[in-house]
Amino acid sequence: MRYVVIMAGGSGTRLWPLSRQGRPKQLLELFEGKSLLRLAFERLEGLVDVDRILVCTGRAYADDVRAQLPELPPGNLLGEPEGRDSLGAVAWSSAALQERDPDAVVAMVTADQVITPAEDFRASLRIAFDAAEQVSNSLVTLGVVPTSPHTGYGYLHRAEEVLPGVFRVSEFKEKPSADVARGYVDSGEYWWNAGMFVWRAATLLAQLDRLRPEYAATVREIARHPERLDGLFPTLERISVDYAVMEPASTGDTGAVVLTVPLTVAWSDVGGYLSYAELLPSDDRGNTRSGNTVSLDSSACIVLNMIGPDHVVATLGLEGMLVVATKQATLVARLDDAERVKQLVAKVSEECGVELA
Amino acid sequence: MRYVVIMAGGSGTRLWPLSRQGRPKQLLELFEGKSLLRLAFERLEGLVDVDRILVCTGRAYADDVRAQLPELPPGNLLGEPEGRDSLGAVAWSSAALQERDPDAVVAMVTADQVITPAEDFRASLRIAFDAAEQVSNSLVTLGVVPTSPHTGYGYLHRAEEVLPGVFRVSEFKEKPSADVARGYVDSGEYWWNAGMFVWRAATLLAQLDRLRPEYAATVREIARHPERLDGLFPTLERISVDYAVMEPASTGDTGAVVLTVPLTVAWSDVGGYLSYAELLPSDDRGNTRSGNTVSLDSSACIVLNMIGPDHVVATLGLEGMLVVATKQATLVARLDDAERVKQLVAKVSEECGVELA
Repeated sequence: MRYVVIMAGGSGTRLWPLSRQGRPKQLLELFEGKSLLRLAFERLEGLVDVDRILVCTGRAYADDVRAQLPELPPGNLLGEPEGRDSLGAVAWSSAALQERDPDAVVAMVTADQVITPAEDFRASLRIAFDAAEQVSNSLVTLGVVPTSPHTGYGYLHRAEEVLPGVFRVSEFKEKPSADVARGYVDSGEYWWNAGMFVWRAATLLAQLDRLRPEYAATVREIARHPERLDGLFPTLERISVDYAVMEPASTGDTGAVVLTVPLTVAWSDVGGYLSYAELLPSDDRGNTRSGNTVSLDSSACIVLNMIGPDHVVATLGLEGMLVVATKQATLVARLDDAERVKQLVAKVSEECGVELA
Repeated sequence: MRYVVIMAGGSGTRLWPLSRQGRPKQLLELFEGKSLLRLAFERLEGLVDVDRILVCTGRAYADDVRAQLPELPPGNLLGEPEGRDSLGAVAWSSAALQERDPDAVVAMVTADQVITPAEDFRASLRIAFDAAEQVSNSLVTLGVVPTSPHTGYGYLHRAEEVLPGVFRVSEFKEKPSADVARGYVDSGEYWWNAGMFVWRAATLLAQLDRLRPEYAATVREIARHPERLDGLFPTLERISVDYAVMEPASTGDTGAVVLTVPLTVAWSDVGGYLSYAELLPSDDRGNTRSGNTVSLDSSACIVLNMIGPDHVVATLGLEGMLVVATKQATLVARLDDAERVKQLVAKVSEECGVELA
């Protein structure tokens, strides 16, 4: 049977103060009251039944996840006691599903992007499911056909086509320099590593048995004895699935084959305010505004009032500015400085304490 | 006996969102938790006993005034049912004091300035009290020796010295153009009209009997029958004491003499954010900051967080910006646009309703 695991564990400071310690990006209701998690969930409609969708998240976010996904069966929420990078999420959830269904084929999808159109996304996932089922010992990754030489993503080098629309991956590349990225894009042979995977649960665990046997034993033990989760999960190494499994497997030396299916969609990781603003409508002076705001002689600004209708954010004579107001914090920055919000958050944490950062 | 009436009735939008409909400038705790009203009250220490200080304010502000001036005897708060410009305040309070003490000599002082040093202010008031007592039928006004050709103030033209440090006023001038103001200041003969007065209550009322007999009768009736306040006060004409009394009296045609005493003090009317910021300490990059704020690479900004310690206002890469956060509103403007806040408030009122403006 086919399953989908939505990985919703990450955090980040680039959208501070919208995102915070206890409120990561994918849980924020950024799009007409819907969060990225909710959008990721709705994107799966018609692909698998809702009782075969799981969400793997930090336990601290479990209540928020349940509130945003009331349709999700209670047993389908996997709450990590603490984060263990992507391998923790994919290995534990694969082991849990194999325990439930020895023939489980699992798609691991991320929750922190806006992806449109959803039909094209589901079509790629169906091709990836087919490939994972038809090609033994295969690990299938989704590759986004790049639209720019982005230096913030990892790339994968596609080789020969092994099935219609399915290619072998010969190599993974870490985040490249601008020059190298330019070359990748021009060659047409490199795709962004989407961080989404499809495999038989058994195949992933067999690879893990070979590459990190102790890790594999631990996640199997957790899957069989859920009461041991709190004691065992924190003992897992913090490591990414790319580094631990996909990269070694792509050499062909582990008995597996790494495949990729192209994802030709509009893709935004909402990695900062500029990319968020691109997804929202703007007014006739190029301002992107959300919530109760009043603007006089302001242009090319992003103004977000998340405090609510009893508060107004009013701007006068601004150009190219970012203003974000939440209950805990107000951020005012030049938009071309928005990449440095992380530094500012560090200063807030230092001067005001972590509860405001 | 000598009395002081603090006039604390005004409102204004230039300090929005600090000042608002229900919270005028003089009640805001702008200076280390003290309001301009509180500073005005403390400025009188040693001049008259506290039971001879009265406050005339809008009735809507009465609770705030009592909270800020717990020493004030309950009977010394005059709450206007609605504002009737400065004549309403000075005429009613003069009549009320004459009813209490037929020989009352009253100083009418304003509550919306920062004035230092307080000793010099009290010294000028003592000279003005002496003049009002010694010169029959005199109306004494305080004149601020100008430090700049300000076009936002009225000016008075001083004539001959009639007592040491006391001059006759020959003419009042409305707010002048920049050129005219320059000439005034250069001549040394024009002083800012401080809007503060000292007179025998009987003298003011006698002038009013002559200039506006119906008005005089009404305030006397209110003073004798306080239960008629709500019915009568709103019938009073809206007019300033300068226009109704001081200007006509300065011609010498009404049987009174208008005198002035110089006030050589540092004087700020906190009329906007720039003048407010001048009164606060600034950091090593020229930022004036108040409340819980964090600043990264920002300079020459005014950043005021009035929401409280559970909120932080964080700025990144700003120069010459104004950021003010209150519970109801966040204002972000270029400082050199700060004079246009009034326009912005009108837009807020229109788009969001008067409760946020």
